[in-house]
Amino acid sequence: MAVDYSLYLITDRHLVGTKDFFDSIAKALEGGVTLLQVREKDISSKEFYDISLKLKKIAHAYNVPLIINDRLDIALAVDADGLHIGQSDLPIDVVRKILGESKILGYSVSTIQEALYGQRMAADYLGAGAVFSTDSKADAGEAIGLEGLKKIVAAVSIPVVGIGGISISNINKVKSTGADGISLISAILSQEDTCKAAKELISLWKK
Amino acid sequence: MAVDYSLYLITDRHLVGTKDFFDSIAKALEGGVTLLQVREKDISSKEFYDISLKLKKIAHAYNVPLIINDRLDIALAVDADGLHIGQSDLPIDVVRKILGESKILGYSVSTIQEALYGQRMAADYLGAGAVFSTDSKADAGEAIGLEGLKKIVAAVSIPVVGIGGISISNINKVKSTGADGISLISAILSQEDTCKAAKELISLWKK
Repeated sequence: MAVDYSLYLITDRHLVGTKDFFDSIAKALEGGVTLLQVREKDISSKEFYDISLKLKKIAHAYNVPLIINDRLDIALAVDADGLHIGQSDLPIDVVRKILGESKILGYSVSTIQEALYGQRMAADYLGAGAVFSTDSKADAGEAIGLEGLKKIVAAVSIPVVGIGGISISNINKVKSTGADGISLISAILSQEDTCKAAKELISLWKK
Repeated sequence: MAVDYSLYLITDRHLVGTKDFFDSIAKALEGGVTLLQVREKDISSKEFYDISLKLKKIAHAYNVPLIINDRLDIALAVDADGLHIGQSDLPIDVVRKILGESKILGYSVSTIQEALYGQRMAADYLGAGAVFSTDSKADAGEAIGLEGLKKIVAAVSIPVVGIGGISISNINKVKSTGADGISLISAILSQEDTCKAAKELISLWKK
């Protein structure tokens, strides 16, 4: 399964409001999301597993790979296409050994040092941010800005996806940094029509 | 490493008060704890990993096996001696496949049906409870009582450990059910002297 990092949707089941969670994700995939990450906190392992199994089926119906956030055990249990870990998750070297070489491994970074470390530890791609300050991830720290993203993109040879506060209004600026894609939560999931939101974002990105 | 289920301590870093967490555990092992489970909630994967690595070293210094609660990924990452899962964790058949045959697998049950299922799914032991109602585990459900524990012990051929509200005051009654051991959190960790608490409990149990 080829990986297209262009429009990378991260889930948050609390953001879809009264809409159906799985339906909102399916519509976003219909609209053009190219990569899907299950990122759920405050959830039992069983629920995380059940949600991930369901989303894997939905994502694969659109030929989109499924990535699990943080939880290596869930990634193994549902045989996901990959795992995304951050600085407060399991050490990347330990994770790569257990996950195996064939799975996609993403790594969250906010500095050039972390980016180079991730690349050295065989991450397949980096999530760099927060590009802009955001409320979606309380633990995301201070924004690195477009300049910070640009420096990380220039420092490594693996794909870099910008994350944090990215929306229709700033997508062109993010594109100009040379990033390989944009990672979004609320710019898609908080919208009334997630299909339309994804369609607009991907067409702006591909323009 | 032979498994002695007699005095099974489950951690809760919030219970040790002003005492040092690792020191409290080490003293409890010194006092006679025979099995140690790391059960921590609301914690990052990195912290869980770091705590577990440290506790593995401590437990092994006392020739006590280390079991991880819920998180299969942490168990794999620190190469723990086993994993304990409950009804809201990953499915036991999926877990056994990934964990491998050589590791200890524990399963929380509160009914005979769950107990038989756990045994069929190759659990090495069962944690049955809550024997008495308790505040330690908010998700433990209604107490099964001494009668409930006795029935589960009689229904299966694998070791059964009683859990929930067990203390000095009721240990003899629990022993009379035929259980293979007692699992405790606060009866050890909330005590000023965790070594003395463990010593008293194990001597009562072995009497």
